[in-house]
Amino acid sequence: MKALVSTAPFGLTDNTPIKLLDDAGIEFKVNPYGRKMSEEELGEAIADFDYLIAGTEKISEKVLANAQKLKLISRVGIGLDSVDLVAARRKNIRVTYTPDAPSPAVAELTIGLMLSLLRCIHISNDAMHHGHWQRIFGRRLSDSTIGVIGAGRIGSRVVEYLSGFGCQRILVNDIDPSIESSLPGHVKMASKESIFREADVITIHVPLTQDTRGMVSEEELNLVKKNAVLINTARGGIVNERALRIALENGTLFGAAIDTFETEPYSGPLCDLKECLLTSHMGSMSEDCRARMEIEATQEVVRFVKGEALSQEAPEAEYQNQVFSKR
Amino acid sequence: MKALVSTAPFGLTDNTPIKLLDDAGIEFKVNPYGRKMSEEELGEAIADFDYLIAGTEKISEKVLANAQKLKLISRVGIGLDSVDLVAARRKNIRVTYTPDAPSPAVAELTIGLMLSLLRCIHISNDAMHHGHWQRIFGRRLSDSTIGVIGAGRIGSRVVEYLSGFGCQRILVNDIDPSIESSLPGHVKMASKESIFREADVITIHVPLTQDTRGMVSEEELNLVKKNAVLINTARGGIVNERALRIALENGTLFGAAIDTFETEPYSGPLCDLKECLLTSHMGSMSEDCRARMEIEATQEVVRFVKGEALSQEAPEAEYQNQVFSKR
Repeated sequence: MKALVSTAPFGLTDNTPIKLLDDAGIEFKVNPYGRKMSEEELGEAIADFDYLIAGTEKISEKVLANAQKLKLISRVGIGLDSVDLVAARRKNIRVTYTPDAPSPAVAELTIGLMLSLLRCIHISNDAMHHGHWQRIFGRRLSDSTIGVIGAGRIGSRVVEYLSGFGCQRILVNDIDPSIESSLPGHVKMASKESIFREADVITIHVPLTQDTRGMVSEEELNLVKKNAVLINTARGGIVNERALRIALENGTLFGAAIDTFETEPYSGPLCDLKECLLTSHMGSMSEDCRARMEIEATQEVVRFVKGEALSQEAPEAEYQNQVFSKR
Repeated sequence: MKALVSTAPFGLTDNTPIKLLDDAGIEFKVNPYGRKMSEEELGEAIADFDYLIAGTEKISEKVLANAQKLKLISRVGIGLDSVDLVAARRKNIRVTYTPDAPSPAVAELTIGLMLSLLRCIHISNDAMHHGHWQRIFGRRLSDSTIGVIGAGRIGSRVVEYLSGFGCQRILVNDIDPSIESSLPGHVKMASKESIFREADVITIHVPLTQDTRGMVSEEELNLVKKNAVLINTARGGIVNERALRIALENGTLFGAAIDTFETEPYSGPLCDLKECLLTSHMGSMSEDCRARMEIEATQEVVRFVKGEALSQEAPEAEYQNQVFSKR
């Protein structure tokens, strides 16, 4: 009865998950690298374990081939794009995740990135730290048209926070058209194309799937307004990084804030563009949300061990629309 | 009938103020330096003018000694600390300002700075642009205790925006205790000392007066919680810059965001501290608010010329509690 904790850090700001494992008598080992494990490292490490408490590291068929004892993958976080769900099912390995816990942290970071982009906080901060005083004109959030692509747990919370600023022009796009009836009056459903054409601020809150990979590419970036800014706190791969770089270099796009990348850790050419505000996949990295994610993921392992029903198993739609093979 | 426009830029993103002056037949000259004019430059320039549309440049008794024709100083913005009001009154020069126009822009910038500080956006952005991937743990706004010192036009709007995030612990301090009855349930009045001791985020929204100069000094900074962050989008001089630098260097304070400085343009030692997020007095620098400020200040000049009542004359309390002499 042993658990491998491949996510890192773990139990750092709140040691409840460690207590939960101890109390349930579950022996565990934490990722010794302190960073995302590679496919090879995880494949080597996993052989001896019954349960995996995982971050966003790649859990491929090759990794699972070595996972002879594995019965449960419990993802700390929301995306399931890192897990070969179909391969896991073939081996009768169940998969759970914590889709609700990160939402407030991701939504707050998103608003922070919007305000930085609109007011050029990052540009002015860089200039000041190089001895240059430059009063840069910005724009107000509540005076902007905001396009929110994906109105699920995180996107809907972003809309809520925007509404608190008095934003009067919010366009949302979602695969579920039935959400329209629940939207407040100042929020309108719109096509993705309308959002790219009309929004001053475009923010992405969809999962990475076969349908969303490359959703923001050259074609879409050519539609945007001259002063538009783009935010991606969802997943790398949704925004084509090469097209983004070109759009920023050409001035097609005024600015962008990117928290998630096709390959992480990221150190590609966006790092050379000061118009591109960059953070290191920190959407869910608030102390409270990270703790909640780790606790919820650990509780699933404890439930499994005790033979109780799992609380947040991966939905069937994730198996049907698995993106893993294309990653 | 000539106006000197000493503020810069002017009519840049919206040319309405220029049209207003033209339509009223008022000849005008705009600050040719494109930056804040010095006392000497302003003193030399002003001799020939009847009206002054002013930024935050120093309008001292010495400047006014040359202003033989001047009848009105119309300040583009909220603070009156740059104007020797008493000296102006002695010369029968009236003074107006635009206290409401900048509030939404300053309040939005303030929230953006808070989110940057709490989530270390500026630190991660700097690291990423130097090729370092570092996932930094942050804290959530709605999970923090926020202390708002000064609950006037801007501070009360900051409270409103914070409430939109679901912040449940907001402490406010104001010289007017009667505002307590109008506060929503989750907002409590508190002494400045309590705010320094208890708040995770401390934000300043008071004018610079004899009472507020040096309000945040070594003594106050020694009271704060280990993880506290400080934001000043009000006026330089309220926060003692030397004490702030020491607190950041010592780690007494986790971080700070400073938009206003004792001397502007600023290029002092805070520029060497990456924990200190710096912007170039950009609180009111959103296109819409700047335009509104310029239009309102110009309208006052037009009213004066037409013999109409002025709309936003400097309040008597500003004369009584003038801070100028100590600047």
